[in-house]
Amino acid sequence: MSESNRPVPSVGMVGGGQLARMTHQAGIGLGVNFGVLANTATDSAALVVAATQLGDDRALPDLLAFAKSCDVVTFDHEHVPEPVLRALEEDGVVLRPSRSALRYAQDKLLMRARLTELGAPCPRWRAVATIEDVTEFAGGAGWPVVLKAASGGYDGKGVWVVDDADDASVVLRRAADSGVALLAEERVAFTRELAVQVARSPYGQVAVYPVVETVQRDGICHEVIAPAPGLDEERAGRAQELAIELAHALEVVGMLAVELFETTDGVVVNELAMRPHNSGHWTIDGACTSQFEQHLRAVLDLPLGSPRAVGRYTVMANLLGGTDPDVHGRYIHVMAKDPELKVHFYGKEVRPGRKIGHVTVVGDDHADLLARARDAAEYLKGDQQ
Amino acid sequence: MSESNRPVPSVGMVGGGQLARMTHQAGIGLGVNFGVLANTATDSAALVVAATQLGDDRALPDLLAFAKSCDVVTFDHEHVPEPVLRALEEDGVVLRPSRSALRYAQDKLLMRARLTELGAPCPRWRAVATIEDVTEFAGGAGWPVVLKAASGGYDGKGVWVVDDADDASVVLRRAADSGVALLAEERVAFTRELAVQVARSPYGQVAVYPVVETVQRDGICHEVIAPAPGLDEERAGRAQELAIELAHALEVVGMLAVELFETTDGVVVNELAMRPHNSGHWTIDGACTSQFEQHLRAVLDLPLGSPRAVGRYTVMANLLGGTDPDVHGRYIHVMAKDPELKVHFYGKEVRPGRKIGHVTVVGDDHADLLARARDAAEYLKGDQQ
Repeated sequence: MSESNRPVPSVGMVGGGQLARMTHQAGIGLGVNFGVLANTATDSAALVVAATQLGDDRALPDLLAFAKSCDVVTFDHEHVPEPVLRALEEDGVVLRPSRSALRYAQDKLLMRARLTELGAPCPRWRAVATIEDVTEFAGGAGWPVVLKAASGGYDGKGVWVVDDADDASVVLRRAADSGVALLAEERVAFTRELAVQVARSPYGQVAVYPVVETVQRDGICHEVIAPAPGLDEERAGRAQELAIELAHALEVVGMLAVELFETTDGVVVNELAMRPHNSGHWTIDGACTSQFEQHLRAVLDLPLGSPRAVGRYTVMANLLGGTDPDVHGRYIHVMAKDPELKVHFYGKEVRPGRKIGHVTVVGDDHADLLARARDAAEYLKGDQQ
Repeated sequence: MSESNRPVPSVGMVGGGQLARMTHQAGIGLGVNFGVLANTATDSAALVVAATQLGDDRALPDLLAFAKSCDVVTFDHEHVPEPVLRALEEDGVVLRPSRSALRYAQDKLLMRARLTELGAPCPRWRAVATIEDVTEFAGGAGWPVVLKAASGGYDGKGVWVVDDADDASVVLRRAADSGVALLAEERVAFTRELAVQVARSPYGQVAVYPVVETVQRDGICHEVIAPAPGLDEERAGRAQELAIELAHALEVVGMLAVELFETTDGVVVNELAMRPHNSGHWTIDGACTSQFEQHLRAVLDLPLGSPRAVGRYTVMANLLGGTDPDVHGRYIHVMAKDPELKVHFYGKEVRPGRKIGHVTVVGDDHADLLARARDAAEYLKGDQQ
């Protein structure tokens, strides 16, 4: 190789979940060296990524060893503890997004405080430690109140909607027992939920995707319609601008997902994620540049790709596991019924309620697309048979 | 797992080139187990496929060992010798396409004989062993004559255009020395070259893609325009029907690429390939179902996906290596200039003239798309700088 020959960059993704799996698909085309640090050999990404390292994806020694083979380290999840991230940066590891950006995706109290400081629209909120804090907050915001773990949670849960002081005290007590800090948020009277994806590179280039509608049931994202049907154009533009402003203000590098509540007055920010996000899976089949390719371009400081939608509408539905694990047997019928449907499996063992894949359809009529995507997801789940 | 739970099928692809690499991308979404048998760890596919086995991809013992982990074995190339294929089938290995189909892609004499039998349009041709055979053929078909190695070739070449008997005798002598059988073909006065991709499943389902124009220079495919601009609709339909008839008649399973010459009178068949093919790379970004996904669906006897083009036109240009290997340095500028351009790198070391990747653009104006794709390919090659 000549001296001027820049080596192909190496990106390492921490975590072996489906986001890393789908990022690998994008990395193959880009021709970058892509590796993952996975906890087990049967992790979704470990099944398909040649450069998989096994290790504890939250432990400093394993992360340090993994980082040695990477020009840039990025994340499939936000669970690496802040002190570990700090130690990695002190060791010279290039984290994208950086620790100082990631903490806003890791700690909801920090996120709310910073967003409030920036004047971003938020629900009413406050940190709560005692039942008096909660009842005082409810005095202004009204019951029910949404209690959230600032980070982590307990019993696998991090959000509780409480109707009164009795309900709240149960959550407070168990949170205190688990050492979990809580915040209270107003329950927003939203008309629907929206999300915006934006990519930002270290150079400061941004690329924003169309605003999408996300359909949640039982706290799980079931469907995404891109773009959000009937969304006022000016409101959509303002939501995109908000996402761009947040990406710059929080100095995000990579993908930022901004989950929003739409109300009669406008939008308020619900959650942030600094990585490819479920609300952006539609971009694999529905956009010129997928969120996974965009994330890689951004963390490598490559020029960003066009976020243009390739069809009028794209609908994505998550595939949740049911009680019958024979997905492959049902898969054939779904393929035969709808040759335009794109199926994405994550290589995960089927467990009831677990996200095991998603399907996408692109076309002109969002109601028809939604019906087809839902039909496929329900059939694959298998419970209605 | 319940007894009714069908296991996820395993497909093994023989050969670690870019076709296997891109098939892996499609296999990740389908959620099938995909492995490759590659000659070296730096083969294009071996760099990215977790389930890579290293071995000689033309040797029976290595192929038998590889086949043990596969429900179905398919191919990245047609170089596995016929006796090896026969031994694999005798051992119970499921080859798709089968040995009896593959031989028409491996041996041009067999292919021409079978196509002639089927009444498919071919250039005039005959097997030639002596200079008398060639001059007799030229007496009817005229000079120059195209001489082709029935399989393999020598000096890395398999096609020679000879102007007279002297030229022909040089080729005949060297072919005889190398033990290579030859055929003579009429040089077709074509107006342009076309190609059709069709997938066929064991069940007999077929899916045919739009007829494309392929632009060759120095015997190398440089660009593909999908669909072929200005192609008479009836002629396009007949070319698609021809591809379907050949897929059925030759009992192809998987992708079949039919390369055609277009003449003032119609089309004649130039070459066949029974695998994903360079003339179908446009389908990754330009069709609802890529040829790679379609190949996997076909060899697994899954229902085929829609071959519908997602835009009005898609143009693909191959990236050939130049003298300066710093592709990555130039890559950034290409990305910045054209955010809609999709770049696909094969992870190959740059060598002059070697196919190291391809680019694709989708849009409405094929002349504009061709200019952009060419511009990117030439800039990435680097020689004009």
